[in-house]
Amino acid sequence: MIYADNAATTKMSKTAINAMLPCFDAIYGNPSSLHSAGQQAAEALLSARKTIAEILGCNPNEVYFTSGGSEADNQAIISAALYGAKKGKKHIISTAIEHHAVLHTLDKLKAQGFEITLLDPHENGIVLTDDLLNAIRPDTALVTVMYANNEIGTIQPIREIGAICREKGIPFHSDAVQAVGHIPVNVSHDNIDLLSLSAHKFHGRKGIGVLYAKRGTVLTNLIEGGAQERGKRAGTENLPAIVGMAAALKEAVSHIDENAAKLIPMRDKLISELVKIPHTILNGDKQRRLPGNVNVCFEGIEGESLLLLLNEKGICASSGSACTSGSLDPSHVLLAIGRPHEIAHGSLRLSLSEENTAEETEYIIKSIQEVVSYLSGMSPVWNDLQKGEKNYVIQ
Amino acid sequence: MIYADNAATTKMSKTAINAMLPCFDAIYGNPSSLHSAGQQAAEALLSARKTIAEILGCNPNEVYFTSGGSEADNQAIISAALYGAKKGKKHIISTAIEHHAVLHTLDKLKAQGFEITLLDPHENGIVLTDDLLNAIRPDTALVTVMYANNEIGTIQPIREIGAICREKGIPFHSDAVQAVGHIPVNVSHDNIDLLSLSAHKFHGRKGIGVLYAKRGTVLTNLIEGGAQERGKRAGTENLPAIVGMAAALKEAVSHIDENAAKLIPMRDKLISELVKIPHTILNGDKQRRLPGNVNVCFEGIEGESLLLLLNEKGICASSGSACTSGSLDPSHVLLAIGRPHEIAHGSLRLSLSEENTAEETEYIIKSIQEVVSYLSGMSPVWNDLQKGEKNYVIQ
Repeated sequence: MIYADNAATTKMSKTAINAMLPCFDAIYGNPSSLHSAGQQAAEALLSARKTIAEILGCNPNEVYFTSGGSEADNQAIISAALYGAKKGKKHIISTAIEHHAVLHTLDKLKAQGFEITLLDPHENGIVLTDDLLNAIRPDTALVTVMYANNEIGTIQPIREIGAICREKGIPFHSDAVQAVGHIPVNVSHDNIDLLSLSAHKFHGRKGIGVLYAKRGTVLTNLIEGGAQERGKRAGTENLPAIVGMAAALKEAVSHIDENAAKLIPMRDKLISELVKIPHTILNGDKQRRLPGNVNVCFEGIEGESLLLLLNEKGICASSGSACTSGSLDPSHVLLAIGRPHEIAHGSLRLSLSEENTAEETEYIIKSIQEVVSYLSGMSPVWNDLQKGEKNYVIQ
Repeated sequence: MIYADNAATTKMSKTAINAMLPCFDAIYGNPSSLHSAGQQAAEALLSARKTIAEILGCNPNEVYFTSGGSEADNQAIISAALYGAKKGKKHIISTAIEHHAVLHTLDKLKAQGFEITLLDPHENGIVLTDDLLNAIRPDTALVTVMYANNEIGTIQPIREIGAICREKGIPFHSDAVQAVGHIPVNVSHDNIDLLSLSAHKFHGRKGIGVLYAKRGTVLTNLIEGGAQERGKRAGTENLPAIVGMAAALKEAVSHIDENAAKLIPMRDKLISELVKIPHTILNGDKQRRLPGNVNVCFEGIEGESLLLLLNEKGICASSGSACTSGSLDPSHVLLAIGRPHEIAHGSLRLSLSEENTAEETEYIIKSIQEVVSYLSGMSPVWNDLQKGEKNYVIQ
């Protein structure tokens, strides 16, 4: 099996598994307990917190462990929104290509009377800082822009956006779920006030994530109960997953350049070969994208059939985000960068990890060529396209 | 080390660890993905869901996976409250001895205009159904009563409470975090509409729990995002923890009678020997308590000193819940059953698992006798007590 769906989730690394294993039946105390079993767990928890803080460029007490990226996104946005509302600020700026954990939280806030401005990215999937500047109002309570997109892999100008927000005194949140561990992320350098990450996107565990909140940020609890995480997130700390996450993150960032150097040539080879297929277009910017991300649209082809046939050839890929793969709606990201419905339906995302090889890349290219050729032979639209009787955006 | 703090958290069982291990680097797909790696994960997820549903006495689609008991409590209570409010019902009945995940959620609702009635238990820690009947009003939106108490181990008359609620048409939630896996719990027989459980209390993983919601219950999302858990709880499913939880629960319930038969004599031996120590009293009912729970108060003794000295003798115990162990406030549970502040401060909870032995029990008794004797020699209050110059409730 060739696994090329690492943006959906990753295989845990051996390092992370080994770090985590003792926490199941050796260091198993409750970190809140006063006895030695608890204190041993508390030390492991603190050590993991320090590791993560150092990597993110913040203090350990600015790290809040959550059940994952979605929870972190929800808590960050709700916290900033409610804090803003208390000061009469009920306007939030985001982008049209955010993850649903952000967009659906914004929908909820909209229903509660907040006003939401969603910036449309340029056709290459990147937001223009001028658009942000134009959108900022005196009552803007929050700007939330994802670090890198989960579907098309485009990397936003986060440092510039952060600088603008800092200058204007507006809290800035970034959903960095797809970025952390893959490209350098540093909350201090990037002027970020709130950041979300998820361990299972960098070979850590599912069910664990981090909300970074700059000192002084007022957080609203999503989950009430015990006094864990400085009273801001109740529930016994998920020590095994936290320890595994710290190990996975440390490993990922220590190989970040090396991994990128391996992934980028594979990514670019895939892109350059795939766009040679007639009526195929790259989604997202050619350069400013995650090292392992490829996303293309094949005009006249059904994305789901493509995936199933690739799966039969042993290739695990996706049409977009895993979260919405059961849905028949076209990707909101592809629509936002201007792809018509008909084309958005024929999308393919490949997300490579450093475990993938150049040979696998060759096999993926060959397989996609075969599958697209087969499917296009059955597609009435494709025939129209070939005869020049129909024409969308892809030449 | 003798670990007697299983109500705080448990060591994972070998069965649960072994069930979970393949989910880290073999069955690691995202259950929402369409490809074979995803579908393999989806099958494992469904299988775990079926196992848990069968044990709880419900349908698999009434099981919602959460990050733990606290999240499940929060979501259950908020869902029922908001649903009630839509029909003009803003009164909630609970008890004064609930876990903080329940009490703090009720505090939040109170601030939003809900009216909360907290039933005081009888001195033995058990709620009277007559008190419940008296508290029910036409605008009661929810009754939430814990199955078994986390500090004093008392088991509430859940089936009777459930029957009353069912008859009155009021949704009934039970925080069963301490009960599931330890005593029989069946949501159908017990007339429960909403139930919370946490895996790490029965030798499963930290960071995973279940919200059972009877079909037809309208749930409010705490975490927005992807369409996981039938759209009611976003975030990539925590497959390893879920699979581990199902295995741990299956193992726990298949040995439930056997474990109780082992634990009850140890528990009762501890209780009968400890209450022989002068100025010592049992907290909670003698019989209607969890098989592994012992909770006593030593008058004139500081609970924290007691714990630290026991820890030096290799015994891990607690003064009450782990969640509040850093706090200097006396236990709200002990206060609710009528212990004065001075006495509530001298509490000790031992929570045994089936891994504890009769020999360990003997050693614990001997150690507590020694430590209490040592501490009482240093206690000015104790001297007063001995001379009969001071007297609280404990003779």
